[in-house]
Amino acid sequence: MLKGIPVSSGIAIAPVVILAHDAPAAPAVTAQGAPADTSKELELLARSVEQSREQLEKLREQTEEQLGAEKAAILSAHIAFLEDPAFVGEMTSLIENRQVAAAAAVQQVSDQFVALFESMDDAYMKERADDIRDVSRRLIRNLSGTGQEAVFPEEPFILAAWDVTPSETLQLPLAFVRGIVTVKGGATSHAAILARSLGIPAVMGAGEQLLEKVAAGSLLILDGATGELIAAPDAKTLARYEEKAAKEAAERAAYAVLKELPAETIDGHRVHLMANMAVPEEAAALAASGVEGIGLFRSEFLFMDRSTLPDEEEQFAAYKQVATAFGEKPVIIRTLDVGGDKHLPALELPQEDNPFLGFRAMRISLARPELFLVQLRALLRASAFGRLLIMFPMISHLEQLRQAKQLFEQAKAELREKGIAFDEQIAVGMMMEIPGACLQADAFAKEVDFFSIGTNDLVQYTLAVDRMNANVASLYSYYHPAVLRLISHVIEASHRAGIWTGLCGEMAGDSLATELLLGLGLDEFSGAASVMPKVKERIRATSMEKAKRLAEYALTLSTVEEVVQFLRDKTE
Amino acid sequence: MLKGIPVSSGIAIAPVVILAHDAPAAPAVTAQGAPADTSKELELLARSVEQSREQLEKLREQTEEQLGAEKAAILSAHIAFLEDPAFVGEMTSLIENRQVAAAAAVQQVSDQFVALFESMDDAYMKERADDIRDVSRRLIRNLSGTGQEAVFPEEPFILAAWDVTPSETLQLPLAFVRGIVTVKGGATSHAAILARSLGIPAVMGAGEQLLEKVAAGSLLILDGATGELIAAPDAKTLARYEEKAAKEAAERAAYAVLKELPAETIDGHRVHLMANMAVPEEAAALAASGVEGIGLFRSEFLFMDRSTLPDEEEQFAAYKQVATAFGEKPVIIRTLDVGGDKHLPALELPQEDNPFLGFRAMRISLARPELFLVQLRALLRASAFGRLLIMFPMISHLEQLRQAKQLFEQAKAELREKGIAFDEQIAVGMMMEIPGACLQADAFAKEVDFFSIGTNDLVQYTLAVDRMNANVASLYSYYHPAVLRLISHVIEASHRAGIWTGLCGEMAGDSLATELLLGLGLDEFSGAASVMPKVKERIRATSMEKAKRLAEYALTLSTVEEVVQFLRDKTE
Repeated sequence: MLKGIPVSSGIAIAPVVILAHDAPAAPAVTAQGAPADTSKELELLARSVEQSREQLEKLREQTEEQLGAEKAAILSAHIAFLEDPAFVGEMTSLIENRQVAAAAAVQQVSDQFVALFESMDDAYMKERADDIRDVSRRLIRNLSGTGQEAVFPEEPFILAAWDVTPSETLQLPLAFVRGIVTVKGGATSHAAILARSLGIPAVMGAGEQLLEKVAAGSLLILDGATGELIAAPDAKTLARYEEKAAKEAAERAAYAVLKELPAETIDGHRVHLMANMAVPEEAAALAASGVEGIGLFRSEFLFMDRSTLPDEEEQFAAYKQVATAFGEKPVIIRTLDVGGDKHLPALELPQEDNPFLGFRAMRISLARPELFLVQLRALLRASAFGRLLIMFPMISHLEQLRQAKQLFEQAKAELREKGIAFDEQIAVGMMMEIPGACLQADAFAKEVDFFSIGTNDLVQYTLAVDRMNANVASLYSYYHPAVLRLISHVIEASHRAGIWTGLCGEMAGDSLATELLLGLGLDEFSGAASVMPKVKERIRATSMEKAKRLAEYALTLSTVEEVVQFLRDKTE
Repeated sequence: MLKGIPVSSGIAIAPVVILAHDAPAAPAVTAQGAPADTSKELELLARSVEQSREQLEKLREQTEEQLGAEKAAILSAHIAFLEDPAFVGEMTSLIENRQVAAAAAVQQVSDQFVALFESMDDAYMKERADDIRDVSRRLIRNLSGTGQEAVFPEEPFILAAWDVTPSETLQLPLAFVRGIVTVKGGATSHAAILARSLGIPAVMGAGEQLLEKVAAGSLLILDGATGELIAAPDAKTLARYEEKAAKEAAERAAYAVLKELPAETIDGHRVHLMANMAVPEEAAALAASGVEGIGLFRSEFLFMDRSTLPDEEEQFAAYKQVATAFGEKPVIIRTLDVGGDKHLPALELPQEDNPFLGFRAMRISLARPELFLVQLRALLRASAFGRLLIMFPMISHLEQLRQAKQLFEQAKAELREKGIAFDEQIAVGMMMEIPGACLQADAFAKEVDFFSIGTNDLVQYTLAVDRMNANVASLYSYYHPAVLRLISHVIEASHRAGIWTGLCGEMAGDSLATELLLGLGLDEFSGAASVMPKVKERIRATSMEKAKRLAEYALTLSTVEEVVQFLRDKTE
């Protein structure tokens, strides 16, 4: 059994098709040793460019028809590169003046452009490096004559490859591809995001052993939820996974029905099911998935992996894209939460002995108000294009909330002065992820529009456990009685003050906790979109009266084990 | 102004006497270049040994008379070395066989013995290295003829030295020495502990600049509470410190009266004032200081700075020493609390990203029950010799407490089986230093005999602030409303269950917090012995009725600033 990074859930069972040409070990089609026949190479290049453009036009047309305009736009970007004189012109110039082969020219120009785009700080420009790689690979493939477009079988298969580009993902026959597994890549690559939004189970980053251990044509089991890969399974294993896959398929069918129904209990208590989102690319798929909005959109994505900070315009464009994608649906954007385990080169954050107890999130924003104001103005401007809510992370002291709100008012005043539109009714909330804030929820509730409980951090601080530390991870549990008491306390305090409380940690997507959270009075659940149908199913299967009784009893229990056992007994 | 490590509080203002011979840069009195006159060197050595012995006998007699038998025992150990044939015999042999000078022989043998003792794992043997250095220095001083015993002026002075040995400290004329300042050393050196117990203000580790910047005979101000050193002060500074010193003297006089009085409010509510203790050497001074016992004795001292673990006998001897020193007075010993910022080579603890949220204290003890049982048996055996109470650190889950208590019962059963005596009524308590435990205090209270709130860690977790991290330290405060609520909750839960609650963080010794903690119902305060008189004064100056009203009001406030301002207004 192999294991990779689970990037798109679902079980796939099918023979393997290997897309082998992509391994970097394969020799590039170049002729640097000997001078090339210039006119022949120029002709080859021109033909390849034309062929590539035709392929991309056709693919764009198909994609737009089948998957919509947003995904087709990726291909328009590729076509634009083929029409960019700086790109193809540079290749032509290399062939004419340096007598290199066309393939070598493509490779060299591609490397230069990739390096250029990757060195850029603008997140949008950085991503263009992926497009360059994708289109260059296509040009070389067409030059080499080894393959036209890859030809896939017209029966179910799992694609195994060194890596897979977005355009390759879009080219896969959706009727037959059952899964994707790659040597490289990870959960946040564009191809991974596309796989999730297309609903193709995928495991990436499986390592070089993948192509050694998986033979073309042999049967493979891929579990996109766990990252497990089982090559040439025995009959017993196969039967087990077939059963699991059938169960999943039945669930998906049931969830498809659920999608249109409200998250409402038998006795008519209505709550809201939202999704967490990491990158704006997920917006369209999430907007279409049946969730009622975004309960947590982490603004960090704009700030990571770059050496300067995004300016107001860049931030505005990104927030606006998200606001627009969701239209009338609410999107809760959390202001910058870096530090801790998330580094940010541009801020030159200090090395710390205990980063989780250190200089992070709101602590940084308040220490650098000039940077915080840039983000606040960008968020406010984007609020004119959809329904945005703003949320502050890592607040432990009332003074911090007041300072943050004061800066928010300052940002509004600046925009008003310039006559720039924003949503004057924009709601402001705070994460409840530090025990000290939860214990003082009554005071905080008077000064915000909503709470969002962040159980991931809250559990860490309440139990003094770093859940990434294998030596103590077993102590980490959101079913600890103290955590349940804090959650209950926060919700009650919010309702007394007439505001609502959401929860955006993993607990929100854990269906074992659904009835308990419902009974504690939680108003909004925000988890991974893939698990929310199950949460909705649980909510629709119970009554608020029953959930309340369940929650009241759970609060009297004194150990994690007792709580979990009780919930299992009641739920299953 | 210079700054060193404050090791013994109090202000000293006096001319400086420099004990310069101790700088390691001073050339050792050796003659390794030329062969020495053997018979002359042997005679010199014998005379120095004799002279040293006479000095030490005389000093021992004086010390016993003036400071008691325990401090005199240090000097007996030095005399024993002079009588040890392995020690002086080796020097003689070096002179005879290697023709070295007597001073060189002393230095060489001293170095060998120091290296030997320092390499030992037994904490007691390790400390003998200090004795060797001390007695060898005396031998060389007597050999060199440069000085007999150091001669000190018969008028007030501050001693400045490279470092200072315990016997040198004991030799200081208490009538005239006002303070001690050294280039090297720190708060836990033997000389520092002696300075504290002798009541001599001291600052150590001031760095090499000390002897450059401080001139013999010039006036120096030394603040043993802050580590500040002001050489040749101007008139205004001098007047300010003289006033401060006079105020301290008046306070000390008042506290001497307080020492015999109970910690009782005007309306007769009695609480208990205890001291925290780091090393057993402090026991005698603390037992005599007026505190009612030890509220926190950290058992770590036995485990640190060594490569193997102390066995049951060694632990037993150390715990017994402490139990005996306090007689009828209670001593609360906390089981091993390492990990976090306290490393322990013998346990090979893992490197962690967030050690404060990691594998530490009870988490280690429960993972290594065979080691924990050794400590529990040693503690139980020592309980037959005084009044010990056992306290478990870093408990967050009820299951942990139950496991720890089960191991404690197992240790008792093992001793009973062997017919070894221990206190069958020994009380077991737990630290309340993790928010999760405090929130579940009702459940814990049913299963222990007492609580001790550890505010230092509790504040860190409740507010998610590492107080050693300069970037966030300003957020650290035990006056945060959430911390006060947790303290109140723990005390109330303990009283409902019929058990008592103490507090052993720095807050217990902060007299601004005294009336508040009293009003919240705290039963026991344990802080640094030096600050407890002021706490007692505050308790004796108020009534429980008034304190309760103050606490009730403080709990309604919503920021640290409001709480501190309110307490200042009420207290000053």
